[in-house]
Amino acid sequence: MRGLMQDFPLTLPMIVRRAETLFADSEIVTASPGGLERTTYGQWAERAHRLGGVLDDLGVSADGRVATFGWNTARHLECYYAAPCTGRVLHTLNIRLFADQLTYIVNHAEDEVIFVDRSLLPLFWPLVPTFETVKHFVVMDDGSDAEIPDDPRVRDYETLLAAASPVAFGVDDEGAAAAMCYTSGTTGNPKGVVYSHRAMVLHAMASMASDLMGVCQADTVLAIVPMFHANVWGLAHSALMAGANIVFPGPDLTPAAIVGHIERERVTLAAGVPTIWMAALPEFKGRDTSSLRIVVCGGSAVPKALSEAYRETIGLPITQAWGMTETGPLGSWNTTKKRFRDSSEDELAELRTAQGLPVAGVEVRIADADTGEILPWDGESRGELQCQGPWIASGYYNDPRSGESFTDDGWLRTGDVATVDADGYIRLRDRTKDLVKSGGEWISSVELENEIMSHPKVQEAAVIGVPHERWVERPLACVVVKPGERVTAEEIVDHLRDRVAKWWLPDAVEFIDEVPKTSVGKFSKKDLRAKFEGYELPSE
Amino acid sequence: MRGLMQDFPLTLPMIVRRAETLFADSEIVTASPGGLERTTYGQWAERAHRLGGVLDDLGVSADGRVATFGWNTARHLECYYAAPCTGRVLHTLNIRLFADQLTYIVNHAEDEVIFVDRSLLPLFWPLVPTFETVKHFVVMDDGSDAEIPDDPRVRDYETLLAAASPVAFGVDDEGAAAAMCYTSGTTGNPKGVVYSHRAMVLHAMASMASDLMGVCQADTVLAIVPMFHANVWGLAHSALMAGANIVFPGPDLTPAAIVGHIERERVTLAAGVPTIWMAALPEFKGRDTSSLRIVVCGGSAVPKALSEAYRETIGLPITQAWGMTETGPLGSWNTTKKRFRDSSEDELAELRTAQGLPVAGVEVRIADADTGEILPWDGESRGELQCQGPWIASGYYNDPRSGESFTDDGWLRTGDVATVDADGYIRLRDRTKDLVKSGGEWISSVELENEIMSHPKVQEAAVIGVPHERWVERPLACVVVKPGERVTAEEIVDHLRDRVAKWWLPDAVEFIDEVPKTSVGKFSKKDLRAKFEGYELPSE
Repeated sequence: MRGLMQDFPLTLPMIVRRAETLFADSEIVTASPGGLERTTYGQWAERAHRLGGVLDDLGVSADGRVATFGWNTARHLECYYAAPCTGRVLHTLNIRLFADQLTYIVNHAEDEVIFVDRSLLPLFWPLVPTFETVKHFVVMDDGSDAEIPDDPRVRDYETLLAAASPVAFGVDDEGAAAAMCYTSGTTGNPKGVVYSHRAMVLHAMASMASDLMGVCQADTVLAIVPMFHANVWGLAHSALMAGANIVFPGPDLTPAAIVGHIERERVTLAAGVPTIWMAALPEFKGRDTSSLRIVVCGGSAVPKALSEAYRETIGLPITQAWGMTETGPLGSWNTTKKRFRDSSEDELAELRTAQGLPVAGVEVRIADADTGEILPWDGESRGELQCQGPWIASGYYNDPRSGESFTDDGWLRTGDVATVDADGYIRLRDRTKDLVKSGGEWISSVELENEIMSHPKVQEAAVIGVPHERWVERPLACVVVKPGERVTAEEIVDHLRDRVAKWWLPDAVEFIDEVPKTSVGKFSKKDLRAKFEGYELPSE
Repeated sequence: MRGLMQDFPLTLPMIVRRAETLFADSEIVTASPGGLERTTYGQWAERAHRLGGVLDDLGVSADGRVATFGWNTARHLECYYAAPCTGRVLHTLNIRLFADQLTYIVNHAEDEVIFVDRSLLPLFWPLVPTFETVKHFVVMDDGSDAEIPDDPRVRDYETLLAAASPVAFGVDDEGAAAAMCYTSGTTGNPKGVVYSHRAMVLHAMASMASDLMGVCQADTVLAIVPMFHANVWGLAHSALMAGANIVFPGPDLTPAAIVGHIERERVTLAAGVPTIWMAALPEFKGRDTSSLRIVVCGGSAVPKALSEAYRETIGLPITQAWGMTETGPLGSWNTTKKRFRDSSEDELAELRTAQGLPVAGVEVRIADADTGEILPWDGESRGELQCQGPWIASGYYNDPRSGESFTDDGWLRTGDVATVDADGYIRLRDRTKDLVKSGGEWISSVELENEIMSHPKVQEAAVIGVPHERWVERPLACVVVKPGERVTAEEIVDHLRDRVAKWWLPDAVEFIDEVPKTSVGKFSKKDLRAKFEGYELPSE
């Protein structure tokens, strides 16, 4: 027997209709090099419809890829909707990718047009000769004084918009592609995740739940996480659907700028990666940021000390979330369950170091990486974290590597090693590729790193496995000392003695100037391994 | 181009999986005639899986209709999931329907089994001979002393459950029917709405948004609205998905019982119709109901005085929602927009009398009832409220009347006359059928009623149109005076003089003992019209 409900597709145009009819006076603020720019949902939507006309005028194909190379701005948000709401596919290019990766993904996605911020032209334009399919480069003039190339393919955003007619938005098929985002894997070329309209609408609805971000009409959302990172964590969709005010920081991500936005705009929800919050912390002192109701952090694990420092400084700990480009990105969210109501502040702080509970709509399991056996939720068993749900990837765009990342029954293999406790709290323990396998037993490089970083004189630390005659692999700790401090290898190892199992103690400690980072700011173990290739551990 | 997201169906089993894996220790409390019964999600889910086995044991067909005739209880919630999660269709029978309506809908839906509370047997059993398709009557023993008929078709719930094996839940097709609910229209037989799995999951997700009910894990939800009313307003799904504690009041809906639950269980969210809240108000005085964060009311318009009385008594105004069986039921929700932040308490109280903004996922419009012309959102233009969205009905079950209720482009015709203002606030002005058409102009019976009911000596009032030689139709006010009070027709009309247009003033006032009500407690204009058939207005 069939349900008798309307066959109403979940597509992004429904978000625009909601935004323009119900919340026309909600505000979007962009901090551009030329100053603060304020617009309303009503004005924004009118421009987005005209941008749809621009795509027609430029002759972009019916499902052509429309790429962006830009900061977080209202114009970027126009692209976010004009492309998918006219059947095209938004492709957000990560401006921090290496040149050869950008060349690869632009050509692999077969982008037809790229929208680029004027201030990014010096970084961008040298890559253009390597792009094989792009016919137009539309410059979004953000008030920078970067030179605009004299090239017939270069068009001005505002000129095109002024000449275009608005088009109606409409997509019938909720399974159609809405957006693409490439993940920069640890090895090989980036892989393309293709979001459907349905996935993005459901993800937005989930984000509005009060146990998650709870994005609501009364919010003023500061989206610090880049718009080229997994749909700016869904905020581009959830904030519009909810009718929240939105603040886009543009290129200036300094602590002064970020805290300034929070204070001036009375921001209630701010979302960024740990490095942003780490840098911004001192800036909060003495500022009126009392409007904040939640500080959201994802992308990497949030150190307990950082979250507690926020609690002490602004009265709010950091709320941790976990996700990947492949998971929409919201996969888990750290909510304190009611049974911890009477827990001490210390216990709560410890609980907040977990990556959280699976969000409503996503299901997780942990499985033995070798046998595939599903492991219990006992907080002890470690296995690969696997996910399923309506906004979880089922494959990569035109990529023969897709098979490796999914189980036979279709779950996403995240490549993260995790435990899940009886309450459902997920804790990431390592990347499967970053585990150190010593004599057949696994050592978590991440846990070792965290313990080393708890040493007061250590700035950052990364652990890799290096070959060992007897144990096959043993941990090498690569340590960056805080400026002006001195510490010895022995002190590091001593510091670890009552913190980790004896056989986890690193066999060697090397002091380095900086841990190499990936384009998205995570530790690049790949580069570290390359640096220490052929490293010889001291004999026992 | 297709999205590359998992083909993950939105079905009710995902709610059960979430409830049993993440929230096994959340509590469900039922007030039964035998006393308070406490269970956990974990225990409840185990029983629900075994109830699936019972349906197999009873030989219920693959998509057979499983009816319930019960109060709000944990057992009823077991039926809510065991039926749809094994592919069957839950059919909640309204215990307040008239006998011939119950006979009609049981036979029309072809119910195969009916689960009935023991305390309802005296009401229920006399109807049994009229049911043509029901093979089993399963008695849920709630501790009442009602006699259990000696009939081979009568089975005991707990005995069946003890003998059954648990079955796995799984539904592949999100468009499959999950549940049915018949609406008692103003004329003719009730019409069957058929909810799909997809609709119910989306409705639950929408309910969790912080701008709506915001049902969350920390909530304790008191579901006073009956489980046979439009999926208990979705709480049976949203509360489980969120992991909230749930309190079911069973048969005792007295003010003492309701306020007692709120106080004892530290209820945070309570949902019921206006008559419940009207009756309960005096009981709140002197009780500790400080746990409440929201009092939800729907089903009929919430009088401003009632909402304000709650604000004065417990510090919380009533939150008004609008919906119908055909709309899942959540259609609109009264959230105060941020632009009213600095409004006075009076202005806010007035704003709260609106039925609210369309909820995220539902789209509304108003249309001229005669021409179909779409009317502007100016707060003045009155038209039929029409809806579309993924949890809005597209037709009625096997019913030739379906066509009348939908527009050519597929929108639901609600039969309500509404205005929508520029902010998107919907205000119901009348039922299309209840408008009084005087000399070609419409008079809203609901507005007249509200104005009459604002007279301090009036208990309730209903207005109907009666034939008039010159104006075709003119309003007749039927007034119930408060006990111990006296009021004249002239006083009523005088009271209205500066409140409504002169030509709206009723031509006559009749005093009656009670306004007849429908089975769901709304004014029955049909019965009132019958009572005053042939009524002669005084000549002018």
